[in-house]
Amino acid sequence: MLDCIFCKIVAGKIPSLKIYENDHVLSFLDIGPLSDGHTLVIPKKHYTVLHEMSDVDLAEIGKALPRIAQAVMAATGTDAYNVLQNNGRTAGQLVDHVHFHIIPRVNDDGLGYRWNAQKYPEGKDKKIQQAIIAELR
Amino acid sequence: MLDCIFCKIVAGKIPSLKIYENDHVLSFLDIGPLSDGHTLVIPKKHYTVLHEMSDVDLAEIGKALPRIAQAVMAATGTDAYNVLQNNGRTAGQLVDHVHFHIIPRVNDDGLGYRWNAQKYPEGKDKKIQQAIIAELR
Repeated sequence: MLDCIFCKIVAGKIPSLKIYENDHVLSFLDIGPLSDGHTLVIPKKHYTVLHEMSDVDLAEIGKALPRIAQAVMAATGTDAYNVLQNNGRTAGQLVDHVHFHIIPRVNDDGLGYRWNAQKYPEGKDKKIQQAIIAELR
Repeated sequence: MLDCIFCKIVAGKIPSLKIYENDHVLSFLDIGPLSDGHTLVIPKKHYTVLHEMSDVDLAEIGKALPRIAQAVMAATGTDAYNVLQNNGRTAGQLVDHVHFHIIPRVNDDGLGYRWNAQKYPEGKDKKIQQAIIAELR
């Protein structure tokens, strides 16, 4: 992808502060960190969103994430972190190349959630459940 | 884990609205949804946090997440979603059994971020990078 900033980082055309790299995965520091050690983990191959990824790349990302998270925590002295992955503008995705955020959490960091849990009206949950199961088949 | 609510759901001792199940992974609707179709994906085995998980379970979760996400989106008619996974109280983890949220995003849903991106003071980013790399070794 010629215009993709993360593909350019993978290709070494844009500098980054690399943390980890193998054949499938690249990890580097986020340049706009929410906390010290805020790290991105991406597949080297260009996928726009999570559900486009191959099983091989998913497994590689799956293995890399906790290892990198543990190193980030050890290096920054934190014991809590969020893994966030956003798909689509409405979900806050700004770079159209799949990326996982590892965000160490400390007091007064830059991340917060609004988490307004709701309740399903009677019967709506079962309807949605059945609709999702039908789509999985 | 006798006291773990998600282990009880896995064991069938507490009811849930199941979406998907295999030998390693269980998925069910969140009972306090941020939007219609808000779904949880968990390893059946009890792990408190992400960096305790085995490679096998990580790969299985990695494969399940996008498939379930795609079905959730198709069923709810959304085209954007967040994958969130919280480790530790400071990160908002309330149930001490690893769980991934798949949250379809629509206007006026219950989720929001405060995303105060910061900048590293000169040289601090390289120091943190080196500290993380040292921990990975």
